[in-house]
Amino acid sequence: MFFHHKELAYTVRVDKPNPVFGRMLQQAIGGPEGEMRVMNQYLFQGLGARGPKRYRDMLLSTATEEIGHIEVLATAVAMNLEGAPSAMVDDVVTNPLVSARMSGIEPRHYLTSGYAATPADANGVPFTAAYLDIGGNMVANLHANVAAEAVGRTLAARLREMTDDPGMKDMLSFLIARDTMHQMQWLAAIEELNPQHKAAPVEVEDEGDYEQYAHQFFAHHDEPVPEDAIWTNGTAPDGKPFTTAQPAPALGQMPELQPAPMDSFNGPESTAPAESSGGVVGKVKDAVDQITP
Amino acid sequence: MFFHHKELAYTVRVDKPNPVFGRMLQQAIGGPEGEMRVMNQYLFQGLGARGPKRYRDMLLSTATEEIGHIEVLATAVAMNLEGAPSAMVDDVVTNPLVSARMSGIEPRHYLTSGYAATPADANGVPFTAAYLDIGGNMVANLHANVAAEAVGRTLAARLREMTDDPGMKDMLSFLIARDTMHQMQWLAAIEELNPQHKAAPVEVEDEGDYEQYAHQFFAHHDEPVPEDAIWTNGTAPDGKPFTTAQPAPALGQMPELQPAPMDSFNGPESTAPAESSGGVVGKVKDAVDQITP
Amino acid sequence: MFFHHKELAYTVRVDKPNPVFGRMLQQAIGGPEGEMRVMNQYLFQGLGARGPKRYRDMLLSTATEEIGHIEVLATAVAMNLEGAPSAMVDDVVTNPLVSARMSGIEPRHYLTSGYAATPADANGVPFTAAYLDIGGNMVANLHANVAAEAVGRTLAARLREMTDDPGMKDMLSFLIARDTMHQMQWLAAIEELNPQHKAAPVEVEDEGDYEQYAHQFFAHHDEPVPEDAIWTNGTAPDGKPFTTAQPAPALGQMPELQPAPMDSFNGPESTAPAESSGGVVGKVKDAVDQITP
Amino acid sequence: MFFHHKELAYTVRVDKPNPVFGRMLQQAIGGPEGEMRVMNQYLFQGLGARGPKRYRDMLLSTATEEIGHIEVLATAVAMNLEGAPSAMVDDVVTNPLVSARMSGIEPRHYLTSGYAATPADANGVPFTAAYLDIGGNMVANLHANVAAEAVGRTLAARLREMTDDPGMKDMLSFLIARDTMHQMQWLAAIEELNPQHKAAPVEVEDEGDYEQYAHQFFAHHDEPVPEDAIWTNGTAPDGKPFTTAQPAPALGQMPELQPAPMDSFNGPESTAPAESSGGVVGKVKDAVDQITP
Amino acid sequence: MFFHHKELAYTVRVDKPNPVFGRMLQQAIGGPEGEMRVMNQYLFQGLGARGPKRYRDMLLSTATEEIGHIEVLATAVAMNLEGAPSAMVDDVVTNPLVSARMSGIEPRHYLTSGYAATPADANGVPFTAAYLDIGGNMVANLHANVAAEAVGRTLAARLREMTDDPGMKDMLSFLIARDTMHQMQWLAAIEELNPQHKAAPVEVEDEGDYEQYAHQFFAHHDEPVPEDAIWTNGTAPDGKPFTTAQPAPALGQMPELQPAPMDSFNGPESTAPAESSGGVVGKVKDAVDQITP
Amino acid sequence: MFFHHKELAYTVRVDKPNPVFGRMLQQAIGGPEGEMRVMNQYLFQGLGARGPKRYRDMLLSTATEEIGHIEVLATAVAMNLEGAPSAMVDDVVTNPLVSARMSGIEPRHYLTSGYAATPADANGVPFTAAYLDIGGNMVANLHANVAAEAVGRTLAARLREMTDDPGMKDMLSFLIARDTMHQMQWLAAIEELNPQHKAAPVEVEDEGDYEQYAHQFFAHHDEPVPEDAIWTNGTAPDGKPFTTAQPAPALGQMPELQPAPMDSFNGPESTAPAESSGGVVGKVKDAVDQITP
Repeated sequence: MFFHHKELAYTVRVDKPNPVFGRMLQQAIGGPEGEMRVMNQYLFQGLGARGPKRYRDMLLSTATEEIGHIEVLATAVAMNLEGAPSAMVDDVVTNPLVSARMSGIEPRHYLTSGYAATPADANGVPFTAAYLDIGGNMVANLHANVAAEAVGRTLAARLREMTDDPGMKDMLSFLIARDTMHQMQWLAAIEELNPQHKAAPVEVEDEGDYEQYAHQFFAHHDEPVPEDAIWTNGTAPDGKPFTTAQPAPALGQMPELQPAPMDSFNGPESTAPAESSGGVVGKVKDAVDQITP
Repeated sequence: MFFHHKELAYTVRVDKPNPVFGRMLQQAIGGPEGEMRVMNQYLFQGLGARGPKRYRDMLLSTATEEIGHIEVLATAVAMNLEGAPSAMVDDVVTNPLVSARMSGIEPRHYLTSGYAATPADANGVPFTAAYLDIGGNMVANLHANVAAEAVGRTLAARLREMTDDPGMKDMLSFLIARDTMHQMQWLAAIEELNPQHKAAPVEVEDEGDYEQYAHQFFAHHDEPVPEDAIWTNGTAPDGKPFTTAQPAPALGQMPELQPAPMDSFNGPESTAPAESSGGVVGKVKDAVDQITP
Repeated sequence: MFFHHKELAYTVRVDKPNPVFGRMLQQAIGGPEGEMRVMNQYLFQGLGARGPKRYRDMLLSTATEEIGHIEVLATAVAMNLEGAPSAMVDDVVTNPLVSARMSGIEPRHYLTSGYAATPADANGVPFTAAYLDIGGNMVANLHANVAAEAVGRTLAARLREMTDDPGMKDMLSFLIARDTMHQMQWLAAIEELNPQHKAAPVEVEDEGDYEQYAHQFFAHHDEPVPEDAIWTNGTAPDGKPFTTAQPAPALGQMPELQPAPMDSFNGPESTAPAESSGGVVGKVKDAVDQITP
Repeated sequence: MFFHHKELAYTVRVDKPNPVFGRMLQQAIGGPEGEMRVMNQYLFQGLGARGPKRYRDMLLSTATEEIGHIEVLATAVAMNLEGAPSAMVDDVVTNPLVSARMSGIEPRHYLTSGYAATPADANGVPFTAAYLDIGGNMVANLHANVAAEAVGRTLAARLREMTDDPGMKDMLSFLIARDTMHQMQWLAAIEELNPQHKAAPVEVEDEGDYEQYAHQFFAHHDEPVPEDAIWTNGTAPDGKPFTTAQPAPALGQMPELQPAPMDSFNGPESTAPAESSGGVVGKVKDAVDQITP
Repeated sequence: MFFHHKELAYTVRVDKPNPVFGRMLQQAIGGPEGEMRVMNQYLFQGLGARGPKRYRDMLLSTATEEIGHIEVLATAVAMNLEGAPSAMVDDVVTNPLVSARMSGIEPRHYLTSGYAATPADANGVPFTAAYLDIGGNMVANLHANVAAEAVGRTLAARLREMTDDPGMKDMLSFLIARDTMHQMQWLAAIEELNPQHKAAPVEVEDEGDYEQYAHQFFAHHDEPVPEDAIWTNGTAPDGKPFTTAQPAPALGQMPELQPAPMDSFNGPESTAPAESSGGVVGKVKDAVDQITP
Repeated sequence: MFFHHKELAYTVRVDKPNPVFGRMLQQAIGGPEGEMRVMNQYLFQGLGARGPKRYRDMLLSTATEEIGHIEVLATAVAMNLEGAPSAMVDDVVTNPLVSARMSGIEPRHYLTSGYAATPADANGVPFTAAYLDIGGNMVANLHANVAAEAVGRTLAARLREMTDDPGMKDMLSFLIARDTMHQMQWLAAIEELNPQHKAAPVEVEDEGDYEQYAHQFFAHHDEPVPEDAIWTNGTAPDGKPFTTAQPAPALGQMPELQPAPMDSFNGPESTAPAESSGGVVGKVKDAVDQITP
């Protein structure tokens, strides 16, 4: 069974709320390269694993970590959809260079979820379990997991390239570090099962200030981790040592989202007074007024 | 962030492994009435909730409980796919009355997952986030959750009706009790937000030996639960008191699946020696041999 | 069986044709909160209902009303895609503040349907029956219907917030009134089945000039409505009386869409002469010409 | 807008209820060759049609007829899922020759809908608007409609081949006759738009006793039909005259489904007393009991 | 089996790279009117054809041609995503008139594929085999193919209308010519099977400089084509003669895509040096810098 | 562009036609582990590749080979659906042990395709491009391809385990050999890009008589293969030499399917005379007759 811890796995900080970037982040939640894919891929692989307990435990532990990454990213999306500081949102959203290139916001961030993340990709296509590779034997599964982290890491690097928000860049560096660790732990498990396999060092795009988390197994469970596993105490493909953090550290804050603007119709309890509303939609009405002859 | 606890939320016991029933259970994992739907529905509603913290906490806590229900059900599916006691499997599977009515096993339980649960419904249709209702305001969300538990509870009652396996019947009684509690907690939250709303007692199909869990909030988080909430200390629609269990109890065992039969091609490490193999497919070969002229 | 009446359920008027808003309206046609969902949800629930005829009749009658709402909304989309008055379209579409916030038009409104509505949501994701909840018992179905109307009403309120077009605001007020009625009729049916259930008044976002339609059952069938039903003659949750209109009134016009511009390639019969073409695409060519060095 | 008429378009009679055949019929409801496809294809083509009113009217009229065909088929599915005469159901379902060839029942007919039709195909794949061709110009749309009727008619002929139930064979003959008419009316409209086009007679698989309905336009609307249209008064491709029935005839009964068996959990109001229950699942329990050692 | 030839079926030339138009072209690759649909529709119809070999050969030959059209279009998408000449890209992308009308780029062209085509439509909805009509008898299949080419040709005409790029207009003229040929060859096959069927001339939107390819069967196989088939040597519906090209001509170049910009993270081997990078995303960063206070 | 060669890549031989096994083979065509996935994955990766030509060529060549595998498998499905020798089909289909375990035939093999393969998996779920991993950089793509072959090879091994038909076992051995080669060629390309990477020998499940094809690159194109590539002339992970076959050999026959039985309604041209019809459905009618009282 599972428990939720009030603090996030990482401290989400959004310096320049940008709903367009919030849309882009959806790809990392609900796209084929996203956290819902790896979370469910590892969960179902782990729940069905019939071999040595160590692989099952590793799969379930990292599946559990990935749920926390959904949480981190959904919080980041929600914070990017917040109106404050609203002037800056206006700059970002209305600059035609930026908005035209990024093709605008996801309308369902307003229409469907009222300023919150959705279980979908950057185009609003709903998550589907068709993205999952769960079917091979253990080695095939591990190869599928290496691939999933590789495409996920590439996505994170591209997302980081799209933003100058320091908080968002930092978050993506952290996620890149964790993706790197995960990719290496799956490679190490393949090596453990077949010692003739020698994985090359993962080609890391600079993981920012989080190099330390690129070689550390996060144990999201209360089982002891195996002492003799490569991925807990052994040597990573790049020659550096793997270490283990148990329990996995809660590096983040307790998320506190701002009240929703009145125009969200999210219910009286979650809605800011009308006068302080700086939501996306309220501004649209003014704009429409201005262009009415 | 999240943590995984080694023990299940409920002790899964399969007395008469039945791969056909394993297929039926998939509906409760990956169908529109299943646990993946409610887990993700509550998770995304909770992560985006901007109102009073108590509703966010409640949504995330129950979302966390539902991940554990996926775990319980996936374990039950895997155990139903196991060969032991193999003679009985033969009886169940080959009895034309049973097999014809139930339309047989899910071929992807062998072809795709090698004797494990899949993220799909009883027909093998992959889970999709299109099942989720996440879009309303808080009250609309709560109504959607009442509905999701109502259809889920009906499904569980129907599944219980399809089996005579005492372990499976008991598991479904437990899940019915929890669905009942969840439905009532969402109704209580609606009532709290609008005291004029008075929910009628939920029409419970007998929840077996688990009546005590039909009125108890399971706190799957380390936040204190609100003292003054109806669903933690108040009165349920049927007049009985709500209570709270914090932390949520781990009522189950540490799951230990049997090694996979050799014909699973799951990898040497997870595979039983050939002579003890009692898998579904091995038997098919024999049968095919018999009918070859 | 069914009959089509030449007049719409509501008089659609578009004062400022806006293809971007036309895209937004798609969410109310083909999204999980839209009319195709409720129409099919009530239709399949009704066709399979085996209990008292009154619930079956109510479900089928309201399913029939919802087909008419698809018609109203598809007409509104088509009218928003029309070029006239074309100068205003230019203002709306080219104002970067508006267009950037709303992320532009749906390209398939031109590419696929030639200036007409599509069976898809605001992101072009095709309608799927996975949105439907049809599986519970009658009470579970009714709860699912309450939820569907609640999220639908929230969507309509958000759509109304996005536009200043008086015709479109009025149409959404009418649809909100009908959603309110439908939500209350399902609640009333739950109460009828279980008199201990007391629904609170629905939290209505102002339904504009259509308060009278928020408490009136529209009988879209030739069966007599039950005299003794709460939803036909009883008291609504807010204390006001329910009334019944039989037959359901045809409040709208016979829709007459403008001929398609030449660039639609919709066929000579439906295409305006080239000189009067004011379509979206024709303008793009000019714009592209201007930016060609 | 639309109205529902209490009587069916055709009198559904099921002589030998057969849940396996009920599953097969689903293909004609929710598959790519089914009624939900043509209903929505014609509806969206019609609602977006900007050319001469006569084509719009024809499209909407036939779309309306197709909703009634969904109704007919859903009623037929529900009646095939009924237990009576239960002894015969047992014969059909448990005969291994039949059941093995037909691959059994659709489990969601019990698990999800409680003995009712679902919006899905014979494999339980949910209906999707991806099946629709709505995008061409009027002539392209008409070709797409010819194709849709052609594949639909082939499906109906195959379904008729699978059953010996006189009622079901008759229903499929009626639907084949209507498909033939629809295919010819689309061909006639192409010819009207381009008189050089001469469609060959449609290759009809014998339409049983319903030859008269294979050349008659059913006007499901209160608009006068065009006097000068080929499909109302002209000559069909096979040289026979087209005629028109306005209003479209209600050839069927008011459907009355049997109460659901107790094991459906459909709610007390729609459930037969336990002693008379002859449902599919109840029998399974007995069978399982018999094979328990 | 199949072979790949190094040269394209058509010489792709992009004069003004335009990522927005690249998005639009996706509809012709992965949408319901696109090449993946017809390629797979003809492939599965052909592989399952049990009648005279000539229809099977024709279906497989044209299926093979359509794979090459996917190749042509994917090359065109990739070339439209290239940065050169970058100044012009800026004009196109940042002109609010153009960008607002066309609703911007497809974010997954960067996030998912790193400046390459995706197997999806213009909204990023993944291709699904649900688009295919493969089920009728041979005549029904041929009607479905006529319809598929008709909607595909309409899409191509609309796409051509959206661009002033001479290369792109020319490519679409070529594809329209081939669609016209394909539509006529399916009509001719229907006529061959039923000589009473006389198809009217296809209403061709001007196929530019490629009229010669609108009446020529391309044999993409090493089987002799039937001498006596209408579509190889007979008369087309417009009275012009059909001819045959065997082997099908390779009218295009060997595609050479530019190296990807550094920001693509496509790997060092496929990435241009940083100084020459003119990619879409790099520019976004600058823009974001400019609007940072 | 592409060409089709009349002979298959492999000689398909079905000794005991078995429609149930035909259903199972669908997983290898349209499932997430199937040939449509790898064909499209390699095709889109190749068409978008911007790096050294050798990787693009390799991707497109193997994509082309995979189209031929779809052809081989679709032929195998069609031959398994054929009635001859019909007596044996009866044994297989009607033996309850076999049929119950394998859950029967795919009804759409009759209803939708008339005894032919469909673009779907073993449960009839349509192929979707959501299965594809196309997004990483070149190394990530190669890892995704290693994974795709690994799960595909596992599926083939499981399918081979399910049948005793010598022809089918042999075909699956051939496909396993090719999957092994493909997996090794992707691993070799990773090694070429990063010489520190040393792949372990692929764990081969016995590839039957086709060991020679497990180390041979099939060049499905007319480009010269690179002399210095590991996968053409180097050493495989198991120490054996890679060789190259150019052109790729056509090892199979020209497929000739039997005429369809009359009950297929596939059209007179493809239908056997009624008296010789031994189709699946015809037998069902007899069976139904027998059980009619």
